[in-house]
Amino acid sequence: MRQSKLFVKTARSIPKDIRLVSHQLLYQAGFIRESVAGRYYFLPLAMKVRDKLIKVVEEEMDQSGALKIITPVLHPIKLWQETNRTNSVGFELMKVKDRSENEFVLGGTAEEMIVDLIKKFNVSYKSLPFNVYQFSQKFRDELRPRGGLLRVREFLMKDAYSFHANEVDFKIEYEKMRQTYHRIFARLGLETVVVESDNGYIGGEYCHEFVVVSEAGESKFLISEDKKYAAHVDIAKFKKEPKNIGDKIEKMVPVDAARGNSMQDGVKFHKLPLWQQIKDVMYVDDQNRFILAIIRGDFNVNEEKLKKLIKASSLRHATNEEIINLKSEPGFISPVKISSHVIIVADDSLRTIRNAYGGANKKNQDLLNINIDRDYQPNLEGDIALAQEGFISEQGSILHENKGIEVGNIFQLGHHYSSKMKANYIDSQGHEQLFYMGCYGIGIDRTMATIIEKHHDAKGMIWPKIVAPFQIHLLNLSQEFTMADKIYGYLQKQGYEVLYDDRKESAGIKFNDADLLGLPIRLVVSPKLGDQIEYKARHEKESKLINIEEISKYV
Amino acid sequence: MRQSKLFVKTARSIPKDIRLVSHQLLYQAGFIRESVAGRYYFLPLAMKVRDKLIKVVEEEMDQSGALKIITPVLHPIKLWQETNRTNSVGFELMKVKDRSENEFVLGGTAEEMIVDLIKKFNVSYKSLPFNVYQFSQKFRDELRPRGGLLRVREFLMKDAYSFHANEVDFKIEYEKMRQTYHRIFARLGLETVVVESDNGYIGGEYCHEFVVVSEAGESKFLISEDKKYAAHVDIAKFKKEPKNIGDKIEKMVPVDAARGNSMQDGVKFHKLPLWQQIKDVMYVDDQNRFILAIIRGDFNVNEEKLKKLIKASSLRHATNEEIINLKSEPGFISPVKISSHVIIVADDSLRTIRNAYGGANKKNQDLLNINIDRDYQPNLEGDIALAQEGFISEQGSILHENKGIEVGNIFQLGHHYSSKMKANYIDSQGHEQLFYMGCYGIGIDRTMATIIEKHHDAKGMIWPKIVAPFQIHLLNLSQEFTMADKIYGYLQKQGYEVLYDDRKESAGIKFNDADLLGLPIRLVVSPKLGDQIEYKARHEKESKLINIEEISKYV
Repeated sequence: MRQSKLFVKTARSIPKDIRLVSHQLLYQAGFIRESVAGRYYFLPLAMKVRDKLIKVVEEEMDQSGALKIITPVLHPIKLWQETNRTNSVGFELMKVKDRSENEFVLGGTAEEMIVDLIKKFNVSYKSLPFNVYQFSQKFRDELRPRGGLLRVREFLMKDAYSFHANEVDFKIEYEKMRQTYHRIFARLGLETVVVESDNGYIGGEYCHEFVVVSEAGESKFLISEDKKYAAHVDIAKFKKEPKNIGDKIEKMVPVDAARGNSMQDGVKFHKLPLWQQIKDVMYVDDQNRFILAIIRGDFNVNEEKLKKLIKASSLRHATNEEIINLKSEPGFISPVKISSHVIIVADDSLRTIRNAYGGANKKNQDLLNINIDRDYQPNLEGDIALAQEGFISEQGSILHENKGIEVGNIFQLGHHYSSKMKANYIDSQGHEQLFYMGCYGIGIDRTMATIIEKHHDAKGMIWPKIVAPFQIHLLNLSQEFTMADKIYGYLQKQGYEVLYDDRKESAGIKFNDADLLGLPIRLVVSPKLGDQIEYKARHEKESKLINIEEISKYV
Repeated sequence: MRQSKLFVKTARSIPKDIRLVSHQLLYQAGFIRESVAGRYYFLPLAMKVRDKLIKVVEEEMDQSGALKIITPVLHPIKLWQETNRTNSVGFELMKVKDRSENEFVLGGTAEEMIVDLIKKFNVSYKSLPFNVYQFSQKFRDELRPRGGLLRVREFLMKDAYSFHANEVDFKIEYEKMRQTYHRIFARLGLETVVVESDNGYIGGEYCHEFVVVSEAGESKFLISEDKKYAAHVDIAKFKKEPKNIGDKIEKMVPVDAARGNSMQDGVKFHKLPLWQQIKDVMYVDDQNRFILAIIRGDFNVNEEKLKKLIKASSLRHATNEEIINLKSEPGFISPVKISSHVIIVADDSLRTIRNAYGGANKKNQDLLNINIDRDYQPNLEGDIALAQEGFISEQGSILHENKGIEVGNIFQLGHHYSSKMKANYIDSQGHEQLFYMGCYGIGIDRTMATIIEKHHDAKGMIWPKIVAPFQIHLLNLSQEFTMADKIYGYLQKQGYEVLYDDRKESAGIKFNDADLLGLPIRLVVSPKLGDQIEYKARHEKESKLINIEEISKYV
């Protein structure tokens, strides 16, 4: 393509509110422009990258045996009502009515639609398993879109849905998809960490995110030094080593404790270790229940785990007034003899200590030698602890906190949708059986931005060959066009994808733009070079003079 | 692909409300299923056709120099307000609000979005002309979707928008697009007629539809025997030959006329030709104006032309009561001395006759020798006549009525959008100038259905090679799979696209399905044939025995 024909120009300056590197470069290179917050126009060079990216995903999905389909963008709301998702994800859903007052959801994910479609066929066990996928525009009414293509309100997604007779069959596909995703991202130049994560509003029991480590990302996860364990912070587990578990259980005694509100105040006052103290946090949930979360003093409560355990959709801290109304005392809360209106939820770490100390539900009064079962009985017990940097994985390796961009995810759905929507296949005995399902997503636009986050330098983008908008950037620095035109023609005839900078601009502008656009190979035609041309790979520093006929050696 | 892995089965029966052949075949072959009226799921075989169709359109658009982009599906409503299109196309527009009460339109066409995008760049005359195109999901809240993929509420469209310095430059692109469209449809096996048509809600001054002649279509047009003229019925012109224009103008006289309401009653009563009678039709428009349309008796009023001439968006016939209130008389309306509240709109055919006859605004009273200018003065005069079968084109060739499917269209937009949205380029003097624009659409899904309408027989689809889901349908009629598997492997290795019917079904079912799916070539493996295979082209009757190594001669 002749660059003179590209109406989009590179930008010299970047609006101040554009902060992430990928966003800055996409703007500056003229790849995208914002329509309104979170909604973007894609310009010609971006489309070339996007099409190549789609091609890689499509090739690998086809290779895996998945079948391409497409569903309408507008989903009849009654399907979402069948699965209760109009409420659970209501805050991000956009709804629209047609002229006949029929209501639709603008598709965020398509589980309901795909199940609705599959139900239209009398699927026999002989057709199982199968996996269908689509590339379609998705809508999320995000509160705060940010970072260019990393968190948007409208985006292209590859979403796939697999159907199985049972869990065993499903797990084969899940593993196949995991490998397919690895191959896809590897081909795109992205190293991914597979992170156990929360299934969020999709439903099902477990899922994994494909995360590219990056400060630009919003996925916080913990990964063990031995790389055997990686999990999203919301669900990460760790080893809670036993402390004084061999000690004899002592008699519980009340003591005066003129101390402040912090855990450290308790440690100083009693001269006992932090881990022996009980940490008490009083919450109120969305059903107005009082929830007292208790945990070993050296750990913190993971509110996501807590919500899941108590099946609440939101939590807030109780106010001092509410605590006092419960006949307890802020800073001195205790599970011991707390009001029966309170649901006590204990982290299982409380079984790793004996003779704990903590508040007595009275100001300036503590209890020593508090022991679970004898002195208090939790209503619920489980893992509600937050994994943190330096903790130990269950396999014994040190955990490190990390951040990254979620470019893909794979979900077990089990019978979640098929049971709610009564979707069955016919088994070999002629009986109806619920489908066992999985689903698998890749954010195409986000992946494009992630490639830039990982492949750039101070001067601009550095496109991996497989997704570069063009393979070769041909710069003409001569006033004459004869030689450059000839070389452009030659390269095109050889089948190379060439962006030909035939503009009447200075050498400086052309070199800067070439670095900014980051095509894999730069070729320069200049009167100073005679019949030779200068070759330089974008990711290398050195250039060299070559004859154009040698080009095949370098591409 | 192994057909046993395709969860979609062909259907034996077709729901009764599916009437058009393309819809029936798409349903029966398992290409599409309806989500809700006018919104369709596309299944794997349909996706293969669709992708190939997209590829042809894309290749030709790229070849023409157009640049691919994409705009968001949600268009900020304020852009549509700038061009007044929220009102003019309000009845088909779907609107949606986000969580912050920002209002959007679900894109029907994207003129406003593209102009908004282009305005973000300081386009110089040096970058002109350029043409940008996209494939994107479009939404039209059609009152009555019908005919499967022929009239839907959600569909994939290729829409392109070109920007020019002036009309001369635009016309070159318009002609280039006309040729590009011809090439596209020809490659897809579709013969198209280029029909002058009404620009509808797009704006601009002229446009052309690409129509495939078909009874399934909704585009009514007239085409001259010499093929030099084709125009949509709404705008078609014809020659209004002079009648008794050399006659002497006689004195107007009232006469008693005990006759009925029809034009034929007048002819019989006065024993004068139909063409000499004045046809008077009283309308009320959307601004509650009374419009009296008058025309030569052998012609009919074209309400679309009339609306355009009087700049009304809708018309209805006046009631008898309204006519009487105007001091006229149903069946005896006359432009002569009609109430001054009435706007008289005369077809220019009234200048081809003299001494006309017709009503006198009184029951059972007519006037003879009515002459324009002398006896009545139209407020507006122009072409409001409906072209009909057998009329003569302005070039003197007989016009024939025809019907077809509009698969594409090209529009002159001129300064319509650029002036309303203040979109300028910088000319060579550094001054701002309005862009001169055009736009160009192709309905992808409708084109797919049209190909079926034109390429099928009683047994099923007959896909042109270029868009066939697979090139070869390999049927195994043997109980053994060894030979068929081997041939399948061989064909795949040779790079052919093969659908392999490896199902355990009867020969009859397999042959029927092969005819229904309509792949270009059918190959049969059967124990009866020894080492040979039976070859048959879908569009031919005869089959022959071949050795598999010869296959390249036939594909």
